[in-house]
Amino acid sequence: MKVGFIGLGQMGSGMALNLLGAGHEVTVYNRSAEKCEALREKGARVAARVAEACGGAAVFTMLADDAALEGVAFGEGGILRHLAAGAIHVASSTISVDLSRRLAEAHAKAGQAFVAAPVFGRPEAAAGRKLFVVAAGAEKAVAAVTPLLEAIGQRTFVVSDQPEMANLVKLSGNFLIASVIEALGEAMALAGKGGIDRHQYLEILTSTLFNVPLYKTYGGLIADRKFEPAGFAAPLGQKDVRLVLAAAETLRVPMPLASLLRDRFLTLLARGGDKLDWSAIGDLPRQDAGGNLG
Amino acid sequence: MKVGFIGLGQMGSGMALNLLGAGHEVTVYNRSAEKCEALREKGARVAARVAEACGGAAVFTMLADDAALEGVAFGEGGILRHLAAGAIHVASSTISVDLSRRLAEAHAKAGQAFVAAPVFGRPEAAAGRKLFVVAAGAEKAVAAVTPLLEAIGQRTFVVSDQPEMANLVKLSGNFLIASVIEALGEAMALAGKGGIDRHQYLEILTSTLFNVPLYKTYGGLIADRKFEPAGFAAPLGQKDVRLVLAAAETLRVPMPLASLLRDRFLTLLARGGDKLDWSAIGDLPRQDAGGNLG
Amino acid sequence: MKVGFIGLGQMGSGMALNLLGAGHEVTVYNRSAEKCEALREKGARVAARVAEACGGAAVFTMLADDAALEGVAFGEGGILRHLAAGAIHVASSTISVDLSRRLAEAHAKAGQAFVAAPVFGRPEAAAGRKLFVVAAGAEKAVAAVTPLLEAIGQRTFVVSDQPEMANLVKLSGNFLIASVIEALGEAMALAGKGGIDRHQYLEILTSTLFNVPLYKTYGGLIADRKFEPAGFAAPLGQKDVRLVLAAAETLRVPMPLASLLRDRFLTLLARGGDKLDWSAIGDLPRQDAGGNLG
Amino acid sequence: MKVGFIGLGQMGSGMALNLLGAGHEVTVYNRSAEKCEALREKGARVAARVAEACGGAAVFTMLADDAALEGVAFGEGGILRHLAAGAIHVASSTISVDLSRRLAEAHAKAGQAFVAAPVFGRPEAAAGRKLFVVAAGAEKAVAAVTPLLEAIGQRTFVVSDQPEMANLVKLSGNFLIASVIEALGEAMALAGKGGIDRHQYLEILTSTLFNVPLYKTYGGLIADRKFEPAGFAAPLGQKDVRLVLAAAETLRVPMPLASLLRDRFLTLLARGGDKLDWSAIGDLPRQDAGGNLG
Repeated sequence: MKVGFIGLGQMGSGMALNLLGAGHEVTVYNRSAEKCEALREKGARVAARVAEACGGAAVFTMLADDAALEGVAFGEGGILRHLAAGAIHVASSTISVDLSRRLAEAHAKAGQAFVAAPVFGRPEAAAGRKLFVVAAGAEKAVAAVTPLLEAIGQRTFVVSDQPEMANLVKLSGNFLIASVIEALGEAMALAGKGGIDRHQYLEILTSTLFNVPLYKTYGGLIADRKFEPAGFAAPLGQKDVRLVLAAAETLRVPMPLASLLRDRFLTLLARGGDKLDWSAIGDLPRQDAGGNLG
Repeated sequence: MKVGFIGLGQMGSGMALNLLGAGHEVTVYNRSAEKCEALREKGARVAARVAEACGGAAVFTMLADDAALEGVAFGEGGILRHLAAGAIHVASSTISVDLSRRLAEAHAKAGQAFVAAPVFGRPEAAAGRKLFVVAAGAEKAVAAVTPLLEAIGQRTFVVSDQPEMANLVKLSGNFLIASVIEALGEAMALAGKGGIDRHQYLEILTSTLFNVPLYKTYGGLIADRKFEPAGFAAPLGQKDVRLVLAAAETLRVPMPLASLLRDRFLTLLARGGDKLDWSAIGDLPRQDAGGNLG
Repeated sequence: MKVGFIGLGQMGSGMALNLLGAGHEVTVYNRSAEKCEALREKGARVAARVAEACGGAAVFTMLADDAALEGVAFGEGGILRHLAAGAIHVASSTISVDLSRRLAEAHAKAGQAFVAAPVFGRPEAAAGRKLFVVAAGAEKAVAAVTPLLEAIGQRTFVVSDQPEMANLVKLSGNFLIASVIEALGEAMALAGKGGIDRHQYLEILTSTLFNVPLYKTYGGLIADRKFEPAGFAAPLGQKDVRLVLAAAETLRVPMPLASLLRDRFLTLLARGGDKLDWSAIGDLPRQDAGGNLG
Repeated sequence: MKVGFIGLGQMGSGMALNLLGAGHEVTVYNRSAEKCEALREKGARVAARVAEACGGAAVFTMLADDAALEGVAFGEGGILRHLAAGAIHVASSTISVDLSRRLAEAHAKAGQAFVAAPVFGRPEAAAGRKLFVVAAGAEKAVAAVTPLLEAIGQRTFVVSDQPEMANLVKLSGNFLIASVIEALGEAMALAGKGGIDRHQYLEILTSTLFNVPLYKTYGGLIADRKFEPAGFAAPLGQKDVRLVLAAAETLRVPMPLASLLRDRFLTLLARGGDKLDWSAIGDLPRQDAGGNLG
């Protein structure tokens, strides 16, 4: 299939490569052009403008946040103007429920289709085609892009015909991960101050009830207090919690644990944690228990 | 080894059976004597009083709460009076850090030893020798009872020479489980009110990042709103959160997520949830989001 | 002075009347024109469009929320287009810090001045010239409108030369009031469930340490569970807490009590409380303690 | 009337003096005897042991905490053993609801009466007979001691015939005060980080809606960050919040704001705040917003 791909960060590069690898004809675009070269070597066409990436049956976007996607989608040279009637915008970024809804409306009005297809997984998973894809959109549009989604991930979950529901699932998933960080942070602050070795404590947890990579990875970062370099930076975590709370506010769902996470991220950033991994909120309970800061 | 076993509830019965099965000479005691019969058939001696279960090299206790263990340990006919010098009290109940410390002191004063050995696992795990045992106490005492601990569980973790540290680990583990319930409850309230099928949502979570029985079990109970019969009753959950908070207060460790759990359990009990499984706190976010009560 | 006044709700009507009473030449505008009649009788000119209210040295706005003020300020027929160079927009609505900042920039760019002058007080205070005015803006502009501000309130506090700081003070004040409601709600749930008469309890509080109308008023509403008719409706309270949290997020100030209030308002609204006074969040602790709903 | 008075701290000394001043025959006892001298000079008899203070129609206790009162009340030389049948124990300390209940039962069993009469006010108020007294107990007993209560305070509120209800009122009052500290702390962290002068901000608040000494006093301490010397030390604040939460747990009343206060006090103490005034929790929001510690 002829597809465009906009946004070649750590995640996007791997995804675009896998589309190429599956035999699709891919035109890539990135704001800073040098990131396109690796893709060009693998056979991608390189677009000089967003519009040039919109000539196929579908165009993926994988961008940092709402503002970036709004910039690329709306406006003069944007996707909405240049995508063909009947073509499909597949948005894989972690964006707000609200933006997803607005994009769906705008594309519908423009005679195009919109599929939200955010992904779970880190850059390694993107590179290794191990992503989990959560997709939502009109049935026909989702069906049309399913081969593309299968090319980038190990499994695709279709959750709704309303695109924004996929974003809600993605955001709520990040909320659950952050909840694990908070819970581990509190438990390890308690056990650690009690005198228990933090690594042994984690070993007990993760070889019994919590025997899953998520707990091992984040527990290890907290036990080691190793928050640099950031795999997923604290401001992104803060942003996702904000988007969860915004979606919850629209739906009128109180989420006190998400509120706690919000306050944790603000504390972390206020103390200068912009460069740290988001798991650094897991060190705050130790600090509040009198441990040395930072 | 010649051992006593006091407390033949769902957990204790399985543990005592496994001690018998491993070839130990076991004398059992239970307040209501009829529970002893199944053990007698398997070769246990049945004690008519606590004192009669204290004649061996070690005596296990597996009782409901602090009050029950205090009753059995202290006082006229209790363990402290009747255990031989040098013999070991192995306390597997989920008790407070404070009681564990007091028992350690009292046994030391009486020339006896005290090992705290709380366990992770449900009754099925106890029956199937699949428990995880967290043990702490004087090195020599722990070494002496290690064959016994290996007879009741699949793995033993020795965390400290201070017995109460094992209780701290156990309590913090229950805190972590309750945190999972809260996080899942909030996430499912959000996704559900958004219109996503709760079971599909759970399937996505547990086939990806949260692929572990704990999330499947509790997520399923919350999705089904199936809180009866209770596998672990809400008042016991409330008690454990109270003990976590008490230990955290002594150590001066603020735990806002544990505080949230405390309030959840009180709400659940105030609304009449005494008979429900503790996972019923995971339904409160849905209720606070306007869903029907109870 | 020749001034315009846009927004003749319960608050605005009283304020405009007091401007007239102080001898100013007032041109009023309201979306639904019938509210202008009472003012016309007292000597006001009535504008048919926003632009017609912008012909003087200053124009007040007293509107429901950000959206209403944005509509009136920006766009074709709006204040920014029609206010004379050097004239002053005095915004008394409770709006976001962010909108205040954007208005200040836009007016500066248009060669006009912007003063934020939100007020504390209910409609009776507006009518009786008993408002407290919190003003901020460029020194010269604030000085120019001081006679106007003195005409509508009993006291004016000038807090900064940055207009949005006045809005921050106003929003934080509403946060403090909502905190009083929450605290009283929890205390009365406790005392009431303990068996103490709620009115006597309130009498003790407000004749001793909390001898101030705020506690008497809100305490009385909570004790009586009299939340209709709304003096200040729950959705407005929810909005203000949202704006406080937004300002706090920008400044990176974690506010866990504000987060709690957010969750309270969402719970109230999710349970159908849109028509209730915002003090109805003070009944939620009683409900969470097992009291009957609603 | 012939009365005893046990506990001559800052509060108790003033209260005992006022009893003397009202013409009562007072026998005082204090653990460290030198504090009795000032009272002896004013005409008090000085008891060498608790028992000697129990010879009258009533005996007051004004002690630091539950443990101190338990020590004085129960046991060999304690009040219960030595108070005459029909005589009345008036407990003015801030104690737990649970201890109050146990004392009521013990005195009833001993043929004596028990009145809980905790007070609101600082040492100056005690000295100046300006305390507010909250009393509860059997009607006849309360009536009998009313002249005594009137001698120590400006007003007496009788809330229940169950003594522990007076303690519940007192504890909930301290919760309300601590809530004011938290709310002011968050609001001032926000306003201060926004750039508003903290003293001016406080002036606005306390000359408008919050025009009451409580807000002025605590707001001033927070604005000045003047937490030494402690008027009411942080560990006492932490204790009172603990007692509120304990009473709330017994009654099954979730109090999330009280839970937040609990975590604040633990953070304060964990960071070394034992010597600080309890209002120092009002500085934590500023610290969490990135301000310098301590």
